Amino acid sequence: MNLDNEKRLAAIEAVKYVKSGMTVGLGTGSTAAHMVKELGRLVKNGLEIVGVPSSENTKKLAMELGIPLTTLEKTSAIDLYIDGADEFDPYMQLIKGGGGALLREKILTYNSDLVIIIADSQKEVKRLGDFKLPVETIPFATKKIEQSLQKMGLQPKLRVKDSENFVTDEGNFILDLNIEHISNIQLLETKLKQIPGVVETGLFLDMADIIIIGQGETTITLKK
Amino acid sequence: MNLDNEKRLAAIEAVKYVKSGMTVGLGTGSTAAHMVKELGRLVKNGLEIVGVPSSENTKKLAMELGIPLTTLEKTSAIDLYIDGADEFDPYMQLIKGGGGALLREKILTYNSDLVIIIADSQKEVKRLGDFKLPVETIPFATKKIEQSLQKMGLQPKLRVKDSENFVTDEGNFILDLNIEHISNIQLLETKLKQIPGVVETGLFLDMADIIIIGQGETTITLKK
Repeated sequence: MNLDNEKRLAAIEAVKYVKSGMTVGLGTGSTAAHMVKELGRLVKNGLEIVGVPSSENTKKLAMELGIPLTTLEKTSAIDLYIDGADEFDPYMQLIKGGGGALLREKILTYNSDLVIIIADSQKEVKRLGDFKLPVETIPFATKKIEQSLQKMGLQPKLRVKDSENFVTDEGNFILDLNIEHISNIQLLETKLKQIPGVVETGLFLDMADIIIIGQGETTITLKK
Repeated sequence: MNLDNEKRLAAIEAVKYVKSGMTVGLGTGSTAAHMVKELGRLVKNGLEIVGVPSSENTKKLAMELGIPLTTLEKTSAIDLYIDGADEFDPYMQLIKGGGGALLREKILTYNSDLVIIIADSQKEVKRLGDFKLPVETIPFATKKIEQSLQKMGLQPKLRVKDSENFVTDEGNFILDLNIEHISNIQLLETKLKQIPGVVETGLFLDMADIIIIGQGETTITLKK
């Protein structure tokens, strides 16, 4: 099983939804990178789109590939957003944020007319929670949020990179939570967002319209 | 009616709750400044406390007055938080954030054992909403949040200072909302916080334990 090939197949399938004239939100991560590269190839062949990147990394990649870019502020609407996910369940609920770009990704998802998630076959789970749930927090409050989440049984771990606190594009920290014992994740989402200093969570509930999964040499498409 | 004297009287009354050995959260704004000054006077006379400031402005004032300071990260618990409010209603619900420090203020409020609000008599209202509700937003998303809130009938206005966007201590923007027609403010709070890119709102619901109001030459104390 070649997971990278599955990611590529899902990305190519998703890009078929892109038409000239569209404003396209560009996700972040290894699967999304395949999609950005495919878009770059099509743009060279005459496809006329404008991209809205979800991270500094994706912005850089898109610029290298010659994809015209705009910002969320300047665009009137995003027609389509394409991104990967760290996990998805049969309800099309997602965990995202393994790469740390969850805040801008969730903002773009929320503000797009159509949301397509692309994934290799390993991202499909019966229920969310094998993957740790990323939660983005204001540095000023992070220590106290960590204590609160510990009391809630969520075993928070402050994300570290190169032996320093991982810092998001917005200058915040990330706590990774164990949610494998949580039965009501909608309630968890509401509770987490009520804690002052929690900026965003990696739970994307009722946000994906289409999920395209690479499966061996083909793809499977789920629709809401 | 001397509002500044009412603020001072409320501040002095609140400071009576402070005992040696306490960690005290220090609010921000003109009423809170009276409290910080009174604490500074008592510290000079031997009161032993440690302060946790809610803004860069309050930090500066407290340092000038010789109040020992710590951070939320380093302290195990905040015994008492004292701050002003822009409005409070008979349910002891508050609007805060006129000064733009709502995020750190709400984080400290949430993490304090006892919360005392101090105010002049003009801050008391029958129902919230004469004051515009401040909402702190991620710059990347602010334009789209403004459009969403406009559709919700909340007439958002981006806060400006010296003809530039007002920027909070955390590097975010503020939208001021008209909520005078909203009947369910608990629901409004939940809805606002579900919007990706909304970091915090100035609604402090079920957070104040005591409100001390300066009234002419005396004070009135409300308790939960």
